[in-house]
Amino acid sequence: MTYSIAILGASGYTGAELIRLIAGHAQLKIEALGAFSKAGQPIKQVFPHLRHLDLPVLMQIDEIDFANIDLCFCALPHKTSQEVISKLPNDLKIIDLSADFRLSDPDDYKKWYGNDHAAKDLQKEAVYGLTEFYRDQIATARLVAGTGCNAATGQFMLRPLIQSAAIDLDDIILDLKCAVSGAGRSLKENLLHAELSEGYHAYAVGGTHRHLGEFDQEFSKIAGRSVHVQFTPHLIPANRGILATAYVKGDPTKIHDVLVSAYASEPFVEVLPLGDTPQTRDTRGSNFCHIGVVADRLPGRTIIVGALDNLTKGSSGQALQNANVMLGIEETEGLMMVPFFP
Amino acid sequence: MTYSIAILGASGYTGAELIRLIAGHAQLKIEALGAFSKAGQPIKQVFPHLRHLDLPVLMQIDEIDFANIDLCFCALPHKTSQEVISKLPNDLKIIDLSADFRLSDPDDYKKWYGNDHAAKDLQKEAVYGLTEFYRDQIATARLVAGTGCNAATGQFMLRPLIQSAAIDLDDIILDLKCAVSGAGRSLKENLLHAELSEGYHAYAVGGTHRHLGEFDQEFSKIAGRSVHVQFTPHLIPANRGILATAYVKGDPTKIHDVLVSAYASEPFVEVLPLGDTPQTRDTRGSNFCHIGVVADRLPGRTIIVGALDNLTKGSSGQALQNANVMLGIEETEGLMMVPFFP
Amino acid sequence: MTYSIAILGASGYTGAELIRLIAGHAQLKIEALGAFSKAGQPIKQVFPHLRHLDLPVLMQIDEIDFANIDLCFCALPHKTSQEVISKLPNDLKIIDLSADFRLSDPDDYKKWYGNDHAAKDLQKEAVYGLTEFYRDQIATARLVAGTGCNAATGQFMLRPLIQSAAIDLDDIILDLKCAVSGAGRSLKENLLHAELSEGYHAYAVGGTHRHLGEFDQEFSKIAGRSVHVQFTPHLIPANRGILATAYVKGDPTKIHDVLVSAYASEPFVEVLPLGDTPQTRDTRGSNFCHIGVVADRLPGRTIIVGALDNLTKGSSGQALQNANVMLGIEETEGLMMVPFFP
Amino acid sequence: MTYSIAILGASGYTGAELIRLIAGHAQLKIEALGAFSKAGQPIKQVFPHLRHLDLPVLMQIDEIDFANIDLCFCALPHKTSQEVISKLPNDLKIIDLSADFRLSDPDDYKKWYGNDHAAKDLQKEAVYGLTEFYRDQIATARLVAGTGCNAATGQFMLRPLIQSAAIDLDDIILDLKCAVSGAGRSLKENLLHAELSEGYHAYAVGGTHRHLGEFDQEFSKIAGRSVHVQFTPHLIPANRGILATAYVKGDPTKIHDVLVSAYASEPFVEVLPLGDTPQTRDTRGSNFCHIGVVADRLPGRTIIVGALDNLTKGSSGQALQNANVMLGIEETEGLMMVPFFP
Repeated sequence: MTYSIAILGASGYTGAELIRLIAGHAQLKIEALGAFSKAGQPIKQVFPHLRHLDLPVLMQIDEIDFANIDLCFCALPHKTSQEVISKLPNDLKIIDLSADFRLSDPDDYKKWYGNDHAAKDLQKEAVYGLTEFYRDQIATARLVAGTGCNAATGQFMLRPLIQSAAIDLDDIILDLKCAVSGAGRSLKENLLHAELSEGYHAYAVGGTHRHLGEFDQEFSKIAGRSVHVQFTPHLIPANRGILATAYVKGDPTKIHDVLVSAYASEPFVEVLPLGDTPQTRDTRGSNFCHIGVVADRLPGRTIIVGALDNLTKGSSGQALQNANVMLGIEETEGLMMVPFFP
Repeated sequence: MTYSIAILGASGYTGAELIRLIAGHAQLKIEALGAFSKAGQPIKQVFPHLRHLDLPVLMQIDEIDFANIDLCFCALPHKTSQEVISKLPNDLKIIDLSADFRLSDPDDYKKWYGNDHAAKDLQKEAVYGLTEFYRDQIATARLVAGTGCNAATGQFMLRPLIQSAAIDLDDIILDLKCAVSGAGRSLKENLLHAELSEGYHAYAVGGTHRHLGEFDQEFSKIAGRSVHVQFTPHLIPANRGILATAYVKGDPTKIHDVLVSAYASEPFVEVLPLGDTPQTRDTRGSNFCHIGVVADRLPGRTIIVGALDNLTKGSSGQALQNANVMLGIEETEGLMMVPFFP
Repeated sequence: MTYSIAILGASGYTGAELIRLIAGHAQLKIEALGAFSKAGQPIKQVFPHLRHLDLPVLMQIDEIDFANIDLCFCALPHKTSQEVISKLPNDLKIIDLSADFRLSDPDDYKKWYGNDHAAKDLQKEAVYGLTEFYRDQIATARLVAGTGCNAATGQFMLRPLIQSAAIDLDDIILDLKCAVSGAGRSLKENLLHAELSEGYHAYAVGGTHRHLGEFDQEFSKIAGRSVHVQFTPHLIPANRGILATAYVKGDPTKIHDVLVSAYASEPFVEVLPLGDTPQTRDTRGSNFCHIGVVADRLPGRTIIVGALDNLTKGSSGQALQNANVMLGIEETEGLMMVPFFP
Repeated sequence: MTYSIAILGASGYTGAELIRLIAGHAQLKIEALGAFSKAGQPIKQVFPHLRHLDLPVLMQIDEIDFANIDLCFCALPHKTSQEVISKLPNDLKIIDLSADFRLSDPDDYKKWYGNDHAAKDLQKEAVYGLTEFYRDQIATARLVAGTGCNAATGQFMLRPLIQSAAIDLDDIILDLKCAVSGAGRSLKENLLHAELSEGYHAYAVGGTHRHLGEFDQEFSKIAGRSVHVQFTPHLIPANRGILATAYVKGDPTKIHDVLVSAYASEPFVEVLPLGDTPQTRDTRGSNFCHIGVVADRLPGRTIIVGALDNLTKGSSGQALQNANVMLGIEETEGLMMVPFFP
């Protein structure tokens, strides 16, 4: 069976990545592409690399007929997304890739994003889209909130450890290195090749990055108590990839065991042998997440390193994985492509 | 129907690319992986990005049982390839990705490669593997010689023009910019990130690059007279991609017409509207070749720009396309993946 | 003796490069920095890498007191420059890095830049700033027009050959590869790291690049007849560097001799031994231009390759060299820094 | 006064960087260049970017006449360095850039480097070359051991805090991101552009990196007790730069005050305003180290970020700074060049 798909916000990187993945999916067909300023343009004008695909022209979102759409991906900017989604048919399955529905508490949302949420009912209804941990709710959800790419990485590394109390919950440090496509197609000086390619830096230092809202919400929920990690992202001169290094207190063997066991039957999350660490080049362009565990020379301290592709497993690949779950398709369909190397 | 495949020389970049492509192919299954120094290692040790695949361990080539192999890809170094292939079963279908069987004349081979050919009979038998122009011979061939990646690019741009005499045959200049994976996994100082990433240069200047042997052979054959182009490759700080700029004498509209018509029914070669030019970022990781034609301000002069991915359409993708033809599989099977961007 | 310097347009890449060079100059002192939108900011806010320097705050240009300024560099955008310069004191020595005064004929200017020139008198007065060829006029000039960076590269390679008629004047092809800082600090999608670093392309194909106006003007002037070259620039994923490959008709030994002799006493232009070719990594960050000459395999055809740093020798270094000449300082002062490698 | 300099190991990156810096130094003159396999070659063959310099030909080290050499830089590989230095005249001033004399305890040396030290007397005599903290001893030293580049970065960030006990000494985490020139001109697969430029990773995870020997030695010495930090380096796709992020327990304002006060009169170490963080692009090619301090959202936790250029301040610039001190030259001479941006 084939399902009809719409993508809103098709002119950004996550939109392009969705199209790339869906083009290799056996049961999905793109019926509508929505955009704002680029409406009216054929996709090959916006993304010449898609010129061989037979795709609909970009349309204004309010001109799209959703009657025959089975599932809609929203890859719109934050804030815009909640406004657009609140006007979509209320029986349409939706996967939102923005930050708008990740936090379920309106106060948390306001704290991290600065504005009152414009669709509080939908906010309540939305299911958090970390497939490996919310699979059952996603299967029956109408609105799924794709996670932050950094938030996904950190959670893959830490959720099982927090759940099982294998680590000290009050001393978790997550030092993360993110490639530049994570910043989207934004026109900013520090994303220019001339400034980034031979320069890198930390940003949102000190606990101000919005993905901390997700960490706080999710880690506190599973711990049954308040958990606040330290988190510093760094912008790295590469296009795709997240590499996160976590410093935790706990026994390395136990930590490794917990992670191995947590992901034993997961097709996309692989825990390396104890002592090995992953590299972004080995997950690029794929839906895989690799996790490594290493004992520190100091007893009782452990380093956990995670790697994934921010645009794939961290965003559009996760979204497609959720779509498969929502539509009753095999979860791995369209997602088993080999990482892109070199 | 499923065919059994062997890959010899699986530890280089073209070997890895073959595995990536075949993993997404519906009718091919990798039954044997051959190597020299890395024999005995599981592939995930050589290429951790392939760790999720269920692949055979790397074996010494002479320990492989070819009885059940339907087709063998050879991704071995030049010179090694002719020695290995001459010892393979003589009813085995083979696609060689090295330079060893590209030139059909033993004297030409010796001129460009410096040594006497060790398998002159096979050299005579081999079919030149530029699928779009040798499709019929490839369908019935036992041994197909994959083309040089630069040679493929230049031929896609120029063959129809030389065949139709749409351009001056005595004044063809091909200035080519190749990404670094074209140099293979060689350990050389000028391939180090520290030296290449902020430095680029011309090499083999003045007509000494070996791919000129292919240009001379092929262009002279179709012209029915001697044709010698000027060709300068440049090494560019990118991983994948060939961008070639040809300066020819001829009418731009006619040139564009000839190319459009030559590739009208080809699934992988796309001629852009007159005046447009391609970008490597739009073909990366795919089997597509994009060609653009622009009129120069000087009457009677035309610029042709071609772009493709050296590892895919320029090498392993071409090889898989030929395998499809040789095995009677749909030619595009496993090759319609979307270019990888960003 | 120390001279007082002003820099207008200090917040772009050429402005930053001027400051870098002047900071190492024994006889120049920056007394004023002019800007538009960033006026009022300390330079370390605009360019944190300059934070250790004791520099004046950025000012609105019309608030600068030019009474004590000996020489003013204008690193403003095209069109803005002619407006600003026409209002500066008419006895102030000025070096303009924009394109506004490179073409001496108002019709040529309009043809290439699209607008009527707003300061035709100044246009007539301006001396073309290619130091090695206009040294005497520059020494007494009040207004010097810095050349285009591509235009400088091509002229270093070709001027002596055109002057001496060592090559066929009707068949000159210049294929140029420029790093991204040549595009300035512009916020455009194709200058983003995510889009450029693994993608490259030709632009202004077919003879539409504005630097052709300079080539036409200069080459025709020295040839005493109309000379129109073919010129195709390509954008390369590197930060600094121009590598240009010229295809000409003429004897390689004679061509090499002419170039060696032309630059025998020039401190910044080096002609490599016949057969050698330059690399951008060997001139980066310096004021040097390296030129190589290679005989093609086709008799009577020669390839010339030139390399320089677009921001230094191609722009701000040239400007400082001209300032030295205008102020009677040793021409090499502040310009002998070693190329930056790796 | 001018001093005569020899550089042994002139064909690596730190050797090239020394030459670059010394070329801009008013009082040093390179009289001899020593090498092994490349002896006999002119420097322009090894490093074409140095072709304009009038430098001696590379010589075998035992053929160098040290009689007239005032100071010798050794930029040789580890282990080789101790053998070579033990044979040099025992009144020659030497700055060693290798790891051979950084650890003063022979057991520590053996633990981290695996072999018995071949020059234990010299090991005892050597002064640790972190100029800002060993200035007086360096002034009278005969043999100075240049520090590790990572070790220098971490010590600039942490020494004053450990000395003043402004932070918890038992919980210091240093997550460091190093550019690829830090690995030297080694021919390894993961240093190839094709593998590194779109891939990054942690290495020596768990406390196995040799620079930990320096941290342990130095931090324990100033604390008067055993101090063992956690340290994870990561290899980043850039050519130059170290960015280190330290997670400590202590009051951010006090930490900032201690650092500001410690470096108030240092020309090369700059502490940014509280809350600001440095970027590698702002120190590249210079001898500056920038340090930022940020309060974490969790009370009592502080993040410190440091940036410097591994080849300059982390190695050859430090060496030149030490040479100035040893020779009684102004400490900043030849070292005030502006960072190289973009």
